[in-house]
Amino acid sequence: MDESSERRSKSSGPKGSGPVPKAVVSRLSLYLREIQHWVREGKETISSTQLGKLLGFTDAQVRKDFAYFGQFGYPGIGYRCGELTAAIRSILGTDRSWKVALVGCGNLGQALMGYRGFADRGFEIVAAFDSDPTKFGRSLAGRTIEPLADFARIAAERDLRMALLAVPAPFAQEVADGLVAAGVTGILNFAPVTLSLPRTLQVIGVDLAIELEQLAYAVVQSRS
Amino acid sequence: MDESSERRSKSSGPKGSGPVPKAVVSRLSLYLREIQHWVREGKETISSTQLGKLLGFTDAQVRKDFAYFGQFGYPGIGYRCGELTAAIRSILGTDRSWKVALVGCGNLGQALMGYRGFADRGFEIVAAFDSDPTKFGRSLAGRTIEPLADFARIAAERDLRMALLAVPAPFAQEVADGLVAAGVTGILNFAPVTLSLPRTLQVIGVDLAIELEQLAYAVVQSRS
Repeated sequence: MDESSERRSKSSGPKGSGPVPKAVVSRLSLYLREIQHWVREGKETISSTQLGKLLGFTDAQVRKDFAYFGQFGYPGIGYRCGELTAAIRSILGTDRSWKVALVGCGNLGQALMGYRGFADRGFEIVAAFDSDPTKFGRSLAGRTIEPLADFARIAAERDLRMALLAVPAPFAQEVADGLVAAGVTGILNFAPVTLSLPRTLQVIGVDLAIELEQLAYAVVQSRS
Repeated sequence: MDESSERRSKSSGPKGSGPVPKAVVSRLSLYLREIQHWVREGKETISSTQLGKLLGFTDAQVRKDFAYFGQFGYPGIGYRCGELTAAIRSILGTDRSWKVALVGCGNLGQALMGYRGFADRGFEIVAAFDSDPTKFGRSLAGRTIEPLADFARIAAERDLRMALLAVPAPFAQEVADGLVAAGVTGILNFAPVTLSLPRTLQVIGVDLAIELEQLAYAVVQSRS
């Protein structure tokens, strides 16, 4: 992930000093995922030790991360899963559902459209766009593929503010510029390019080849 | 410099103290991506200022990152793109090609199979596996889907050490255990679960819903 370059945050630390580190916010998502698995197993409370163990973190790390946002634990009980889930969702902004646009309906776009994990976390892909006329009107996981040229109009009608950008690299910048002009404020960019966009726009890059490259590095290092 | 000390210098900081921070290694991939675009535009050298500008980093950051691994720049010239590309690839371990197995041929697996970005970075998916008998023998981007039960045999025959794990979350741990038993040393895990595996195994998790969640957080913060 291009976390070093493309994530920005403005919220405050435990003492209101400076932004919460990206790594902490990133761990909140991992905590939430584990708590949700825990709840599915019928458990109602979880300790910082248990939560840390699931992720390979110390209990002190877990407590310190949550301390950025408030006091969530109970002595002798740990965290109440329902309460902690609601708190993390509220922090992350996923206590409400988000309507998301898919831009680019190639192989990857089609997989993203069918990916169930998004809905589980409160994200609903409500519209899909492509610039290939042969795809217009085709159905993709229950949505009709719309012409990319209609993006601004449809985004306004459906109040679309987030987009999954899954177009080929050479078109990504131009398409992203169009999304921004249409009022999009967050882009999850799957194209393997660094986009040059206004700082008001939030972008997270997901470059799958880079992930694999980082894995190769880890494998090589582990042998030496 | 003998071979062992050279290898050690790859995983040590500028003063030989401790491992290279993950963020630095992660930025190497971004540098490489930008240099490759730069070369495609016909350019032969790049300065730290130019490279930093493409990614939103300072020139000092760029030079500091490369300093972990050696001296690559030339005064008055900058970096020679070909040389720097080769050096970064050598550091990352992608100066040779990697044979990769795809495990799980659902929507996401099919998209991964068709993803051209992998080959561009030196990764070739040479085998695809699934546990659904109705998929056995079907062709996916030129590969035949093999029974997951045959993984160990095929992995040994084709010397497969890296895998893309794209199976549903409830099966991910069990399948990963099987991959490890078959000699896999690196897993790119797309299932939204934290795997519990031996420390010798390298795992990078790619949870697309978590990426979107992190984006939601950034969008909410940018408004406040």
